[in-house]
Amino acid sequence: MPSGWPKEYYMVIFSSQRTDSEQSHYAVMSERMIELAHQQPGFLGVESVREDGGLGITISYWRDRDSIEAWRQNTEHQHAQSLGRQDFYSWFQTRIGMVTEERAFGRDDI
Amino acid sequence: MPSGWPKEYYMVIFSSQRTDSEQSHYAVMSERMIELAHQQPGFLGVESVREDGGLGITISYWRDRDSIEAWRQNTEHQHAQSLGRQDFYSWFQTRIGMVTEERAFGRDDI
Repeated sequence: MPSGWPKEYYMVIFSSQRTDSEQSHYAVMSERMIELAHQQPGFLGVESVREDGGLGITISYWRDRDSIEAWRQNTEHQHAQSLGRQDFYSWFQTRIGMVTEERAFGRDDI
Repeated sequence: MPSGWPKEYYMVIFSSQRTDSEQSHYAVMSERMIELAHQQPGFLGVESVREDGGLGITISYWRDRDSIEAWRQNTEHQHAQSLGRQDFYSWFQTRIGMVTEERAFGRDDI
């Protein structure tokens, strides 16, 4: 476990398929959301992977459920969510849950 | 939620970095593990994304914690896990937890 992380913590799994919408706008918005997430209370970390075909999984980790709710309601994030529905994604799925166990091999941090 | 899935269910998040080991062996093994997972009791679904640079996230979903443990101890899977440590991955991290909420946009199934 990365140092400073609680024994149990929460996560948001965001699975998505990019549309063919302009990549530069998406890249700026995506980078900004990662930056903004880092500034939120309760934020622990994020992992994000996207294939060339546009299929992606982003997982953000949070100290508690309330931090996730506050992030969801963040005004700038809500604007990005609207753009996500309108332009960026042909579909997405969000799952929220709690991480209770972890083990790592050859890696110290997230 | 895909039909037939329970309201709450479990997940294994497998984040990993591929080494430069031979791709064809890895591809066969990886495909076989997905196929084998589908045959396990309690298996619900899987999502997997890997970038060209070798960073990947695979999330498998399970009906209960016991199903995850049985899958972890599956003999063929354990052999694959050994190869993962020896050859396939420079690092990986496994997280286990429970999914309690989900919402989807433009998508009916996993």
